[in-house]
Amino acid sequence: MATILPADKQRFIDELIDLLKIPTISADSKYNDDIKKGASWVQNALSKAGCTVTEIFPTKGHPIVYGERLIDPNLPTVLVYGHYDVQPPDPVELWDSPPFEPIIKKTDLHQEGAIFARGACDDKGQMYMHIKALEMMVTHGELPCNVKFMIEGEEEVGSDNLELFIQEHKEKLANDVILISDTGMISNTQPSITTGLRGLSYMEVVITGPNRDLHSGLYGGAVANPINILTQMIAQLHDDNNRITIPGFYEGVEDSSKEERAEMAKAPFSLEDYKNEIKIPAVHGETGYTTLERNSIRPTLDVNGIWGGYTGEGAKTVIASKAHAKISMRLVPGQDWEVISDLFTKHFKSIAPESVSVEIIKHHGGQAYVTPTDNIGYQAAHKAYAETFGTDPIPQKGGGSIPIVPLFEDVLGTKSVLMGFGLDSDAIHSPNEHFGLFNFFKGIETIPLFYKHYVDLVNENKN
Amino acid sequence: MATILPADKQRFIDELIDLLKIPTISADSKYNDDIKKGASWVQNALSKAGCTVTEIFPTKGHPIVYGERLIDPNLPTVLVYGHYDVQPPDPVELWDSPPFEPIIKKTDLHQEGAIFARGACDDKGQMYMHIKALEMMVTHGELPCNVKFMIEGEEEVGSDNLELFIQEHKEKLANDVILISDTGMISNTQPSITTGLRGLSYMEVVITGPNRDLHSGLYGGAVANPINILTQMIAQLHDDNNRITIPGFYEGVEDSSKEERAEMAKAPFSLEDYKNEIKIPAVHGETGYTTLERNSIRPTLDVNGIWGGYTGEGAKTVIASKAHAKISMRLVPGQDWEVISDLFTKHFKSIAPESVSVEIIKHHGGQAYVTPTDNIGYQAAHKAYAETFGTDPIPQKGGGSIPIVPLFEDVLGTKSVLMGFGLDSDAIHSPNEHFGLFNFFKGIETIPLFYKHYVDLVNENKN
Repeated sequence: MATILPADKQRFIDELIDLLKIPTISADSKYNDDIKKGASWVQNALSKAGCTVTEIFPTKGHPIVYGERLIDPNLPTVLVYGHYDVQPPDPVELWDSPPFEPIIKKTDLHQEGAIFARGACDDKGQMYMHIKALEMMVTHGELPCNVKFMIEGEEEVGSDNLELFIQEHKEKLANDVILISDTGMISNTQPSITTGLRGLSYMEVVITGPNRDLHSGLYGGAVANPINILTQMIAQLHDDNNRITIPGFYEGVEDSSKEERAEMAKAPFSLEDYKNEIKIPAVHGETGYTTLERNSIRPTLDVNGIWGGYTGEGAKTVIASKAHAKISMRLVPGQDWEVISDLFTKHFKSIAPESVSVEIIKHHGGQAYVTPTDNIGYQAAHKAYAETFGTDPIPQKGGGSIPIVPLFEDVLGTKSVLMGFGLDSDAIHSPNEHFGLFNFFKGIETIPLFYKHYVDLVNENKN
Repeated sequence: MATILPADKQRFIDELIDLLKIPTISADSKYNDDIKKGASWVQNALSKAGCTVTEIFPTKGHPIVYGERLIDPNLPTVLVYGHYDVQPPDPVELWDSPPFEPIIKKTDLHQEGAIFARGACDDKGQMYMHIKALEMMVTHGELPCNVKFMIEGEEEVGSDNLELFIQEHKEKLANDVILISDTGMISNTQPSITTGLRGLSYMEVVITGPNRDLHSGLYGGAVANPINILTQMIAQLHDDNNRITIPGFYEGVEDSSKEERAEMAKAPFSLEDYKNEIKIPAVHGETGYTTLERNSIRPTLDVNGIWGGYTGEGAKTVIASKAHAKISMRLVPGQDWEVISDLFTKHFKSIAPESVSVEIIKHHGGQAYVTPTDNIGYQAAHKAYAETFGTDPIPQKGGGSIPIVPLFEDVLGTKSVLMGFGLDSDAIHSPNEHFGLFNFFKGIETIPLFYKHYVDLVNENKN
């Protein structure tokens, strides 16, 4: 395969920076115009890279960009999925440079430099690798099969409108394998391929006490304080072993075999490096499991946000009328996210004292997912990484969730291969998100090899 | 005594409205110019009402306004204390009219109308009654003794600079009794006089986990989530009987006698009205105590504010780096607020898991206070209320705190009489704070009677 010319490298970076400047924040409706601008940008990029057909599909939410280059109906078809929307940049004050003014800086792990911007890794940078890989294959006459792109704008808010879209466009989206770069790998010297994703259930709770904020001197001690009550209710959701106490929560969770856990334990991992990278004095999690197990094969419950009462400068002696929290659970195979959402709702209401009322809002969710390592898509990816990195990639279950992936299999009948090139330290969803230039270009080089090996394996399997 | 002429009534309201328009929010430094404007306004009002000397004393924080009318060194001296600063109006969106654009509306309890504005009751309206009472006494030649005013601008943020001021101006502030209207009474048909105030210790806590916000998929389950930890730590501060678990917290708290509790139980109180007024399904508090006891003679611990993580629209799967809470404790006689602040700090740090770090900021505090009912200041107030309301006032311990009051006694050697005219339902510290016109004028009529009876009682005691 051709390597990337230096002039192309600079152009690819410039193009990605151009995309990163558009604040495509899907969670906040005041960015709706930027979302549209982002979708048009991606459509245009697909055209330029070699898609012969491109379309923008409006949805009830944000639009989906589609592109295709079909060269022969007898050849396999790869469907690339990615997203152009990004997480909100909050807390903005913790960014060293503005989140939508990309800059390139060196870091300890990225000596060749990294692009710092919201979405640099998740997922604009990783999605754009696929567009540039197509351009490379088309330019050098090396595209070995058909390719389709489906790039959405609602991944960070639960892909609410994508299921309907894929159901209504099954024919258009028909494929043999789905390729996604929206995960990470162990390190730049030890590639890995994600073979599992956790499911997700995202809830919001509101505790209401009095109908107005009260003076804590006049009422303190005699009236339920919704914030105190909320903390007591949330605290009850874990036991002393950090296991989740919602009745039925673990029902169906398959315990990993000793062999699988032994295999996982072989992945290179330094607890000291892990703690040092995020500056924590000690790890914390479910008793009886290692750190790598806790963040991949075990379900979790985390408060993602909490607020209530006076949060300004100084002191205010108030009992708030309401207290709020956003709480999400990561799920594993054997757990159904809708069942879990219901169990959470029932349990959370049941533990409220009679002195308050509880409102529960269900946000999005999705099932856990597994890519078997004997799948030829997985095997093609394995060969591709091995070739560009010079070392075999390790299969690894990831802790994150891409709720739409299990739905792809349900509706389209095909497996997804999760070819991630980011690092955990890239700070996705955090201030100072970045993506290494090494990783960006390694992705653009590795993806065409996936196509080549995938078509070869399909042909071998036919014979 | 003279009653208030209708033309004067309208002018008094207009003047108070003028003062209420100045957003003298002491907690937020961006209102510093308004604070200065408020202080000048009060100085000017004192002059017009009959003070022969007025001064503004700058402090390290907000200025203190002083005024005096000394008629005879052989007569007693009343020192009036009040404050022109107000609580922040948050949450502003819950106000029916803008907090600094006063309007008059009728309510169920205020058929003659009430002024709605931040500070209407606490304390601009109640403080201004004293200035108008002085004007009435001077105009009608009925001022029976010397009077001094000390109106500060930092009551809502802990009166940090007032102690130094009173220590440095003991001579100037020398008095026989201190008169304060910054509390409430039972109802417009059943007056009461506050004979006790709770002490206060106000703390802020910050829990830090990782050095940056993390993706809850990549790290969830393996890293301590500061919000989850904070909820667990706060939840531990109360036991199942809603007693506070901080070791040593109740040490020194004197249990009220059976007789005292029986006396308290005689105060008119309807639990149904109480619940209905603030729309709560049930009361909530320390086992073994009634609602009136819980919010007056028992110490409490309330979270006044909590925040961390993503609190915007939609969903964000983040583990926050930090979680924050503002926590205050109301204290009773026998508890020293500085000791309690230290006990809280020590205990809160001791219950933190090793996976997080804890920072504790001590805000202001103050001791609990008691005015004995055999004090002649109290007795003069009793006679004054009885005369204007036509019914004996009830002595009542209040749940609020005016941390500076115990200090007055320490430094100046005199007792404070707490002549409040507000109602609990006036929503002080809450949206839609208001003050009944009935209450405003009743205060202006009752205060001169206090002076008269006080001087009489002093003379009787001499004989």
